[in-house]
Amino acid sequence: MRETMIGLVKEVRGPGAVLREVPIPRCGPDEVLVKVKATSICGTDVHIYKWDDWAESAVVTPNVFGHEFAGVVEEIGCQVTNVKVGDHVSAEGHIVCGVCKACRTGNAHVCPNTVSFGITAPGCFTEYAVVKASNVIHNRPDMPFELACLQDPLGNAVQTVLSGEIVGKSVVVIGTGPIGLMAVAVAKASGAGVVIAVDINPYRLSLAKQMGADYTINSREESMVAAIRAYTDGEGAEVVLEMSGFPDAIRGGFEAAASAARVSLLGIPTQEVPLDLSRHIIFKGLRIEGITGRRMYQTWYQLKGLLDQKRIDLKPLITHTFSLQDYEKAFELMISGQCGKIVFLHDTEMKLPLMKECAIHG
Amino acid sequence: MRETMIGLVKEVRGPGAVLREVPIPRCGPDEVLVKVKATSICGTDVHIYKWDDWAESAVVTPNVFGHEFAGVVEEIGCQVTNVKVGDHVSAEGHIVCGVCKACRTGNAHVCPNTVSFGITAPGCFTEYAVVKASNVIHNRPDMPFELACLQDPLGNAVQTVLSGEIVGKSVVVIGTGPIGLMAVAVAKASGAGVVIAVDINPYRLSLAKQMGADYTINSREESMVAAIRAYTDGEGAEVVLEMSGFPDAIRGGFEAAASAARVSLLGIPTQEVPLDLSRHIIFKGLRIEGITGRRMYQTWYQLKGLLDQKRIDLKPLITHTFSLQDYEKAFELMISGQCGKIVFLHDTEMKLPLMKECAIHG
Amino acid sequence: MRETMIGLVKEVRGPGAVLREVPIPRCGPDEVLVKVKATSICGTDVHIYKWDDWAESAVVTPNVFGHEFAGVVEEIGCQVTNVKVGDHVSAEGHIVCGVCKACRTGNAHVCPNTVSFGITAPGCFTEYAVVKASNVIHNRPDMPFELACLQDPLGNAVQTVLSGEIVGKSVVVIGTGPIGLMAVAVAKASGAGVVIAVDINPYRLSLAKQMGADYTINSREESMVAAIRAYTDGEGAEVVLEMSGFPDAIRGGFEAAASAARVSLLGIPTQEVPLDLSRHIIFKGLRIEGITGRRMYQTWYQLKGLLDQKRIDLKPLITHTFSLQDYEKAFELMISGQCGKIVFLHDTEMKLPLMKECAIHG
Amino acid sequence: MRETMIGLVKEVRGPGAVLREVPIPRCGPDEVLVKVKATSICGTDVHIYKWDDWAESAVVTPNVFGHEFAGVVEEIGCQVTNVKVGDHVSAEGHIVCGVCKACRTGNAHVCPNTVSFGITAPGCFTEYAVVKASNVIHNRPDMPFELACLQDPLGNAVQTVLSGEIVGKSVVVIGTGPIGLMAVAVAKASGAGVVIAVDINPYRLSLAKQMGADYTINSREESMVAAIRAYTDGEGAEVVLEMSGFPDAIRGGFEAAASAARVSLLGIPTQEVPLDLSRHIIFKGLRIEGITGRRMYQTWYQLKGLLDQKRIDLKPLITHTFSLQDYEKAFELMISGQCGKIVFLHDTEMKLPLMKECAIHG
Repeated sequence: MRETMIGLVKEVRGPGAVLREVPIPRCGPDEVLVKVKATSICGTDVHIYKWDDWAESAVVTPNVFGHEFAGVVEEIGCQVTNVKVGDHVSAEGHIVCGVCKACRTGNAHVCPNTVSFGITAPGCFTEYAVVKASNVIHNRPDMPFELACLQDPLGNAVQTVLSGEIVGKSVVVIGTGPIGLMAVAVAKASGAGVVIAVDINPYRLSLAKQMGADYTINSREESMVAAIRAYTDGEGAEVVLEMSGFPDAIRGGFEAAASAARVSLLGIPTQEVPLDLSRHIIFKGLRIEGITGRRMYQTWYQLKGLLDQKRIDLKPLITHTFSLQDYEKAFELMISGQCGKIVFLHDTEMKLPLMKECAIHG
Repeated sequence: MRETMIGLVKEVRGPGAVLREVPIPRCGPDEVLVKVKATSICGTDVHIYKWDDWAESAVVTPNVFGHEFAGVVEEIGCQVTNVKVGDHVSAEGHIVCGVCKACRTGNAHVCPNTVSFGITAPGCFTEYAVVKASNVIHNRPDMPFELACLQDPLGNAVQTVLSGEIVGKSVVVIGTGPIGLMAVAVAKASGAGVVIAVDINPYRLSLAKQMGADYTINSREESMVAAIRAYTDGEGAEVVLEMSGFPDAIRGGFEAAASAARVSLLGIPTQEVPLDLSRHIIFKGLRIEGITGRRMYQTWYQLKGLLDQKRIDLKPLITHTFSLQDYEKAFELMISGQCGKIVFLHDTEMKLPLMKECAIHG
Repeated sequence: MRETMIGLVKEVRGPGAVLREVPIPRCGPDEVLVKVKATSICGTDVHIYKWDDWAESAVVTPNVFGHEFAGVVEEIGCQVTNVKVGDHVSAEGHIVCGVCKACRTGNAHVCPNTVSFGITAPGCFTEYAVVKASNVIHNRPDMPFELACLQDPLGNAVQTVLSGEIVGKSVVVIGTGPIGLMAVAVAKASGAGVVIAVDINPYRLSLAKQMGADYTINSREESMVAAIRAYTDGEGAEVVLEMSGFPDAIRGGFEAAASAARVSLLGIPTQEVPLDLSRHIIFKGLRIEGITGRRMYQTWYQLKGLLDQKRIDLKPLITHTFSLQDYEKAFELMISGQCGKIVFLHDTEMKLPLMKECAIHG
Repeated sequence: MRETMIGLVKEVRGPGAVLREVPIPRCGPDEVLVKVKATSICGTDVHIYKWDDWAESAVVTPNVFGHEFAGVVEEIGCQVTNVKVGDHVSAEGHIVCGVCKACRTGNAHVCPNTVSFGITAPGCFTEYAVVKASNVIHNRPDMPFELACLQDPLGNAVQTVLSGEIVGKSVVVIGTGPIGLMAVAVAKASGAGVVIAVDINPYRLSLAKQMGADYTINSREESMVAAIRAYTDGEGAEVVLEMSGFPDAIRGGFEAAASAARVSLLGIPTQEVPLDLSRHIIFKGLRIEGITGRRMYQTWYQLKGLLDQKRIDLKPLITHTFSLQDYEKAFELMISGQCGKIVFLHDTEMKLPLMKECAIHG
């Protein structure tokens, strides 16, 4: 077997990334080695690529990044019993300790000892990746790799939508990035009443329509709060899924929430957000859920059920595919917002004529 | 205004029913008078028509029966504020006291003081019906009456399906009478994983397919338990919706339930059912829900959301419509099982040339 | 029967209140007339007495205020079936419409049509009060009136404590006004793990100890966040009950919350509160509950169970009792904070030699 | 270090057990070796000792049995990070696979691959035991070993009591064996309303009083159903905790359940139980929970909170202590039912002059 491979590496603690030759990782006794077949770009990857404050504080370098993937198992560790060579797999990216209180009480998604695949450990924008056997998710062999690699962000959407009751309820999704778009589809597939999508990006709002939004609101052109009220018989939304992270959008979401509504917060604001707790949260009797990651692993089983029975169709979301070699174009497009989900197909052999191996941690 | 109308009356405490001239009911201060536009036959109505032990113990005579309806408000009582003349309405048929512990703690559906529209109080198989304003359900004016009258049994289906988690879970519906068929549609619309329908009636199983069942099992032709296991990768069903009331089917449902499954019981067995509690309920850690009626009124809002946003389509379920005059044919068809939901259209004026008025209680 | 009585009236839209002769209210067909035996002062009454922005926006004048009471039924309306003359009663103060979506879905506590006993309708700081039969709460005849009148604020405490899981969890109560003190007792009686109380008032902190707090923190003397961490093995509190309404305390509460914690907000801040949603709510996966009123009427049954079985003892909380004539002293003491709960005993006949009747709405 | 130790061994597949010299178990890389300090006898151990049908079907021989223990860690495997030598510990006895669907979705207590400490793997009625590090529960060093060893059955009680709402609700515990007695204490400590205990054994009913039961019913002397109704104002019990496993008691429990009650089943009937599903489960809208094991590991954290804050006191439950050498007396007493919990103190060195080593699996 080869000893090196080509990987997209975050090498310097600043903007950009480079394709480098790196060692093929070794698979530990409780790990599996996966031949990567497709990956997709997460908003987190854009933060790493552009290198902002969050990246500076949270990302290890040098590191092969990327964490959304699908592939085929090529090798398994000696203690592994739940995975076989040849299995089609993806993986939960949060590698948790399993023995802390959070892990032991159904809250592994907030395990304080989490190591993150593709962020603080080597990831998937490359040819081979190593993942813990405990984190492996099996995919049906007939599921296309380019869809299977989308399950990680789909899990965020599922966890957000299903963090409270949904059937028959009016739902607003604020922020129609890829996870917001998935949330639109998940909400509809889960029996939501009217589903309303909000953004300032007409391209994304048009995708939201395709994913099943009953109404869309361009909050640059009309008042989000007024429009949500209008679409909900004046009551406000019973479920608010905040996926933008923008302070004004968050505030508007609380204002547009109906009494006794649920507000689930996934979008990450970069500054403090002043909230009128009395008027919008206490007197209205709201419930708020802070969402991070996926329930390990209930969320995965929920999304599997939805995908396997074709309750949702993610194909319209994949607006562009690239080879990993074209990563710069892909990231530029992602930054422009004129896309849905961007997928890298790892189906051709990658070559790097003039590169030397770099040391990768872990 | 006329003083009498034609109604389908259960007069003698034995099989059958008769069309009679009866007084048009008066609307009390907290009630509304509805011009009935469409009604449908419930299994309960068949019990009343055939007159079995349950009917003998529970039904008041003489009485206009029938409780599934849609109509238009013709008059409102002096204290009524939430309904207007001309509103399109249906109604929750459980008339509860509102002040007992059950009513005050979200369990009005098991209020011990319940009076039942069409069973212990005059019902809707007639031209005009009186209902409590508190029980009125508003229908959109553009909802066809023949669909709107199906909301009461749809509520039973919704309450059964949603008495626990559903998204992504394998679901088996045992018994595909009208409520079972609705449950198939509701489960799918609510994001269920694989949905399996079981019956011994090929006509109904074919309807189940139309309503969205992924698989159907004729339990006369193959082992229900084995087939359910086969369709669920050997694990058994994560959600069992028991709608047949047959002891063997109930026992099979518990056997076919996966570990940690939920079993919701709606079908009413007429005798005691011996259960292996240890093996099928305790060691598997099952949750069981006894289902009666509809959550008042959460269930109605859930089903409204599903109907208004067209997440479910009940049309294929209405296999036959009749005029009330043809009630005998309708009941015979219902008893044969070769039908889905049977609807009476009350759109033509009813005439009864040679009948005299009979006294009706209430 | 007499036609007038003495009542504590908010007459002018400014500070203060006066004892006046007012008409004894008439009991409508669905109402009951109660001879008031004991009342207590709520923080809301202090707002009305002092007349702040909230009072200006929400309070009707002239009006007999006060809403926490216990008494004996003297007369019932003709439609009343659930209450008898001579019954010992208190009442839920939120008079709701019963037919809106909130009322119909278990959220009557946020009914948009709420009329508030003692705030927008005549209240209980007087001899006789009229309440809706639907709102009546029956007290055991052997329950002392001075304890029975505390059930309304106890309901707020119960609803706050039980708005999520509590058994075995570390709990911090921020703000030990009367409801906070009750929350300490309710948390302990409901199986909480360590219970920590925070305030800046040593008198109240000492009461918190008496009500069962395992630890108290004077946040003027030590860092609340650091102390909570220290008392919870560094993890933070699993349940934060915010009852102070102070922005800094609220922010500290979120900071001191453990991962996957629940934060229930009851205290009413008078200004916007800037929150670090990312760090304290989203990444920690918190659940937040906005609390207003009491669940109608689950909360009442919960508190009845606790009181009737003596799981909690409210006696230490009644630090002072007064005659209604001494209302000025009582309010001054309440404003000083050097008290627990202040109760008015209505057991002596009230006299007002030189007062004339004033018109009271409603 | 010594190579052998004395253990209580189930050697032949029939009644009885013998003290034998057995090898001290070796600690694997992810395991810990514990010096056992105290153990207690579970009903399961009695089944093994007496050897009934269940034992024949489920128990491995020869094997050191016993699974309720407390001790001190003497050695840890090379991969262990969460346990140190010298730690005071107990352990969850269900050794689960961690990678199946049940384990991954919060239902590890019904993992189909469970190996049971002391039943299908070597247990604790001996000097040293090996347990998985993942299963270790840390005890405070100041917790007496004889109390700490009771946490496993306490977990069953906690899981049963808390498998639904409890605060303020009327509770009946049917069957006051050790777990039933613990359930009485847990229910009270968790804020239950009236707590009623039922048994036919006066000794145990007297212990139930000591553990906090408000009322006890000797169902041999009076009608259980009638007495429960009498103690609950005619409504029936809102929470029924079935811990006897007797068919008649189970049937009575369903009959005595109030409408909308919760019935949690822990007792294991040895035959099928005929139930009137219609009358007692469906029309009453009951919820039933089958209980097995403990939630891994939420239940442990709940019971730790209760024990550490002294919300419950298990001391009165320990009616007898023995040396392991006196195991025959201990088991005879346990079989007689004239005891609460029986604890073996392992504090003296065990000697077996005339025994040879036997082979132990695992």
